[in-house]
Amino acid sequence: MDDLWLIGIGTGSPAHVTLEGLQALRDAAVILVPQKGEGKDTLAALRYGIIEASGAQAEVRSFDYPVRDPALPYGQRVIKWHDEIARRWIAAIQSAPPGPVALLVWGDPALYDSTLRIAERIVPRPRLRVVPGITAIQALTAAHAIPLNTLNGPVKITTGRQLRDHGWPEGEETVVVMLDAECSFQGLDPEGLQIWWGAYLGSEAQALEAGSLAEVGGRIVERRAKLRARHGWIMDTYLLRRL
Amino acid sequence: MDDLWLIGIGTGSPAHVTLEGLQALRDAAVILVPQKGEGKDTLAALRYGIIEASGAQAEVRSFDYPVRDPALPYGQRVIKWHDEIARRWIAAIQSAPPGPVALLVWGDPALYDSTLRIAERIVPRPRLRVVPGITAIQALTAAHAIPLNTLNGPVKITTGRQLRDHGWPEGEETVVVMLDAECSFQGLDPEGLQIWWGAYLGSEAQALEAGSLAEVGGRIVERRAKLRARHGWIMDTYLLRRL
Repeated sequence: MDDLWLIGIGTGSPAHVTLEGLQALRDAAVILVPQKGEGKDTLAALRYGIIEASGAQAEVRSFDYPVRDPALPYGQRVIKWHDEIARRWIAAIQSAPPGPVALLVWGDPALYDSTLRIAERIVPRPRLRVVPGITAIQALTAAHAIPLNTLNGPVKITTGRQLRDHGWPEGEETVVVMLDAECSFQGLDPEGLQIWWGAYLGSEAQALEAGSLAEVGGRIVERRAKLRARHGWIMDTYLLRRL
Repeated sequence: MDDLWLIGIGTGSPAHVTLEGLQALRDAAVILVPQKGEGKDTLAALRYGIIEASGAQAEVRSFDYPVRDPALPYGQRVIKWHDEIARRWIAAIQSAPPGPVALLVWGDPALYDSTLRIAERIVPRPRLRVVPGITAIQALTAAHAIPLNTLNGPVKITTGRQLRDHGWPEGEETVVVMLDAECSFQGLDPEGLQIWWGAYLGSEAQALEAGSLAEVGGRIVERRAKLRARHGWIMDTYLLRRL
């Protein structure tokens, strides 16, 4: 694997792919597609749909995602898991045609994604190329037609876990929360907070809620649970603003 | 103006345009192009290049960007300026063909861009559609092939002014600085800080620097000044990480 391309494909809509991403798919020799299971067939189908629509001539190889070992402490568990994914990449491209190997990455390869960290494990190190993609943050603000920041104001991007462990980030005005499976905004004092929430962003199933956290927080918790039950999986994110 | 579309076109590369952005350009009846002057002809040319390559059939109308009144205090100055831009949009589409009016927005319409705020001034309020685009942040991390966040870590996006006024944001590990014409990292204690810097991201003129702030900070200041002198303008951004 001399050349490894990580191609950001955006979040949920095949139309999020950029012209650069499209061309990279066409220029790749091999495209690696993870099989993550867990009822996420919709996501796998979306990946295959993008590859097919791109006119890619590459050989498409899939590999099964390993399962994380719950017996290990968090840090170690992730490291072992990444090691195993790197091994499976290598195994999946055995006797593949020579040339650039492409991986489609949900959203953007730089944002809460482990592909770059897994790529560091490949020996010898391949030449890395990253093709930026639309993130869930942009899909969220676009769907609500709102600015991410207040006028020249800063923005904090954080995770559900951070919000649960540390509460509202001191002094922040705008907070985007990702990787939150527990609606962690429930632990905040809702006074003065507005929320813009979105699930399945960019896709036909896109669901949106917005309003004061006190008023819509409960509705989001309920709706999220229903959607998750119906689809078998959910990806959502939200922006909180103190006005 | 019943329908106003803000189309994020990414940063510097025509290949940053998404398939959704491309289709929106084709579906628009009118495309509004600002003339900002200030030697930024490269940017105007890039906009026209994208429109032409898209196969858009729209009528392209340009308008001159007003000048901000330096006599006014900052807040008022921006408000008056936005009011005037909204008036010029309206004037520019007089007797234009009916249908959606599209504006190409550098980067993404949600991130440090005033187009959404200007759109709020249009009476009666048009239906707004926002097409997300690749931001300078994604172009920066892609160019350096680095993750934006540490493993599940938070990220702070801020401005040069904030960094000058408030120093290193308390407790942060990753800070992205935008809108910084003054290399404001010079005011920081460089101990323990790494920087990834990029100018003209995505374009052929793309310039990158990375390393410990103590080592490369001075080189960035020098290189930025030279590039700015040569091109007549510069757009740059950087990521700082405390390791």
